[in-house]
Amino acid sequence: MWGITLHRNDDVSLARQLFLAVTERITAGQIAPGEALPSTRELALDLGVSRNTVCEAYTMLWTEGFIINHPGAASRVADGLAIATRPPEPKAEPERAPVHYRFDFKTGQPDLTLFPWSAWNRDIAGAAGRLNPGQMDYSGPKGYPPLCEEIARWLLRTRGMAVDPADVFVTSGATQALYILVEILHREGKSFALEDPSHPGIRGAVMDKGRSVCWMPVDDQGAVVSCLNGKTLSAVYVTPSHQFPLGGILPAGRRTELIRLARNGGFYIMEDDYDSEYRYTGAPVSPLYSMDPSRVVYVGTFSKTLFPALRLGFAILPRPLQPAWKHARQYMDVQNPLLEQAALTEFLRKRQMDRHIRRMNRVYGEKRAVLIHALEEAFGRRVQVRGDASGLHVALRFPGMEFGPTFEQACRGAGLRVRPVSRYCVETTAYSDTLLVGYGHLDEENICEGVRILRELLKSEILAYEKGKKELS
Amino acid sequence: MWGITLHRNDDVSLARQLFLAVTERITAGQIAPGEALPSTRELALDLGVSRNTVCEAYTMLWTEGFIINHPGAASRVADGLAIATRPPEPKAEPERAPVHYRFDFKTGQPDLTLFPWSAWNRDIAGAAGRLNPGQMDYSGPKGYPPLCEEIARWLLRTRGMAVDPADVFVTSGATQALYILVEILHREGKSFALEDPSHPGIRGAVMDKGRSVCWMPVDDQGAVVSCLNGKTLSAVYVTPSHQFPLGGILPAGRRTELIRLARNGGFYIMEDDYDSEYRYTGAPVSPLYSMDPSRVVYVGTFSKTLFPALRLGFAILPRPLQPAWKHARQYMDVQNPLLEQAALTEFLRKRQMDRHIRRMNRVYGEKRAVLIHALEEAFGRRVQVRGDASGLHVALRFPGMEFGPTFEQACRGAGLRVRPVSRYCVETTAYSDTLLVGYGHLDEENICEGVRILRELLKSEILAYEKGKKELS
Repeated sequence: MWGITLHRNDDVSLARQLFLAVTERITAGQIAPGEALPSTRELALDLGVSRNTVCEAYTMLWTEGFIINHPGAASRVADGLAIATRPPEPKAEPERAPVHYRFDFKTGQPDLTLFPWSAWNRDIAGAAGRLNPGQMDYSGPKGYPPLCEEIARWLLRTRGMAVDPADVFVTSGATQALYILVEILHREGKSFALEDPSHPGIRGAVMDKGRSVCWMPVDDQGAVVSCLNGKTLSAVYVTPSHQFPLGGILPAGRRTELIRLARNGGFYIMEDDYDSEYRYTGAPVSPLYSMDPSRVVYVGTFSKTLFPALRLGFAILPRPLQPAWKHARQYMDVQNPLLEQAALTEFLRKRQMDRHIRRMNRVYGEKRAVLIHALEEAFGRRVQVRGDASGLHVALRFPGMEFGPTFEQACRGAGLRVRPVSRYCVETTAYSDTLLVGYGHLDEENICEGVRILRELLKSEILAYEKGKKELS
Repeated sequence: MWGITLHRNDDVSLARQLFLAVTERITAGQIAPGEALPSTRELALDLGVSRNTVCEAYTMLWTEGFIINHPGAASRVADGLAIATRPPEPKAEPERAPVHYRFDFKTGQPDLTLFPWSAWNRDIAGAAGRLNPGQMDYSGPKGYPPLCEEIARWLLRTRGMAVDPADVFVTSGATQALYILVEILHREGKSFALEDPSHPGIRGAVMDKGRSVCWMPVDDQGAVVSCLNGKTLSAVYVTPSHQFPLGGILPAGRRTELIRLARNGGFYIMEDDYDSEYRYTGAPVSPLYSMDPSRVVYVGTFSKTLFPALRLGFAILPRPLQPAWKHARQYMDVQNPLLEQAALTEFLRKRQMDRHIRRMNRVYGEKRAVLIHALEEAFGRRVQVRGDASGLHVALRFPGMEFGPTFEQACRGAGLRVRPVSRYCVETTAYSDTLLVGYGHLDEENICEGVRILRELLKSEILAYEKGKKELS
């Protein structure tokens, strides 16, 4: 009947297979409107299935309005259900295979092999066992209260920040915090001030929304905030502890100037403290937040200290922003999952976090020393290392050189990823001689071999092509 | 010196305490620009701390630009750092205590006490042990590939949906899926069509963005889609399997009409299948998606079948929408955490999901029967029950009555939460006689007692106040 074949060993029940086959033929116009359906007995015999199966399929057809039942007579196909056969779906394009780099100096990569996975998994198991079913309901956009408390304590003991847990809002990484801030801080006709160069993440979050941008130049001391004088701003985004990508620390003078501007202009400052946990000379830099918690939103992440797939970060929010934040997140994704939040609470409470950061600080410090030594051996005075006091990457300035797409392509060909800073620039051309080198995730051998390959590339024709002259060799 | 007192048993190191105390006095203008700092030996003696501690604090002050070092002379305070004392922060308002309902008929609540927590926690532990460090990096906005495959298999065996795993996109609940869709489907000058009444979540997601809305009336068969003829639309949102809140099933005729409209108008349909897993009469309703996967985005959630704090849902996306989706999510929160995705993969693979849903279907079916029996006992023919074929709530129509804020307040006073459907309406006044009753999370005793209280309330003066006459008693 109707050319229908049913498969007994299928995941889909026989009744549903029959239902699907019939609806397909009705919408394709192969079974005409008004056509009488065979009796359940007849069709059951024809298909070699039980009458129950057919009855079930007919009930589905009737429930969903494909057929109309007439008491005492055959059911008939409803009217107006034929739709033109749909055009074939385009085939999924195979995902482009990601380029494999043998030496990958990408930035912002923690060494995931050294994370204390067993301890973390115990905290996960502990949290899973402790949380009760009632807690697994929606719990609102703020975040798990014990985690907010532990984050406040952690910020106090590691950065001297006095934070009320009521102002801590848990997020899916710093990315989400910045996304929500761009959403709620936007004021019609006013710009967001961003650093140039800056991370593509914040640029995308602002520019994707069609918001206008005021670019702040960056020098060795971070953002040149004086350029903001006289501008009407929605908000200012800065990375004062370790400018991304160049690594400068915003000095006290610029900090106070920025706070004064924010107070006078009535705007907020987004402080993105993305990696200041790792510091190799001196104590961690104080956050801008401490200078004026009523004007600064402090954004932190656990992607660099724990791992990116955790998706946990936070923002410390001035009170007047909190209602708009809650409202926005309610419609965005409501809240973070609870399990990771509860596990991180323990990880902080037991100071496993502090121990892990102390250990990694030593490890990254050693990797940094290896890198800097290798760079000195390879390039001597031709290279100037910037931003090496903290974080997981350094900026390398090669005065007189110029790095563009051709150079990047040559690197790719050699299995090496290093990013020219020009990639992170919008208006400025001041950093075409500078490269970014992330080293957190690499071992010493990789670092040394990567630097060796970089040296080969800088010697070669590529550079001659880009600059018209050879700087090295 | 400077009235500074340091605390030895503090979480904050002595050096940082000293640093903070000095910077506070500099920005407050109490230590003047140009003022010479005492020698480290002098200050160490004065404060009763080691000279190292003072050196460390001075280095921090110098690093951050608060003081200027003069070789061979005293360090001095930098210029221009005083900022007016900041206005006191408003005190955090204590969170309003949530109203406690003794009988809480809220909708969309699964019974979390009956979830197989031990099995789930074993899947969590298994996933935690199996995932390797390399997987804990960013893995992109699509979702964990094995989970996408298991979701596709599950949709095939439970709903007969033929889905390519390449089209499955994991989300933080259906909320995020709808949020992203509203973002990427918006077309300037065109409206989103929503059901009236509808869930506040989708209304918020659309209206918060300032998007214009075209309201579709709803009857016993779901959205009246014929009203869309001639409209220019960005997209249409529907709940065809179980209209929220009224519970109608969109019949085949309206489905084909909607598909035709979408094809002619070049817009997409968002199909929100929020609770059709639970069905008490007949087989699950087929998704609209199956009629035209090139025009329908199917949105599902695990908040009702597993638990809300999991934050896992998904969307099945037509190919042309996938690049915009990936781009949007990259700047929003990048991806879901990996752990829950890996655990859910196992939960689906081992068919624990299927067993759980089968079991809960029986449990919810029994609760539903108790509710309907209690309603019949209490109200007889005065009540008409709608939308009881599936899901976790029913709509109760009391012809001639009118439920407004006063009625809700009276309920609250009696410790009872039932929502008038009017709360979910925007333009229509057709459902002022209808109440929503969610029962999934309640036990039989609660259901019966809640219905008894509802009966008392409907008898009382409240209703007389709202309607000017007594319908019952």
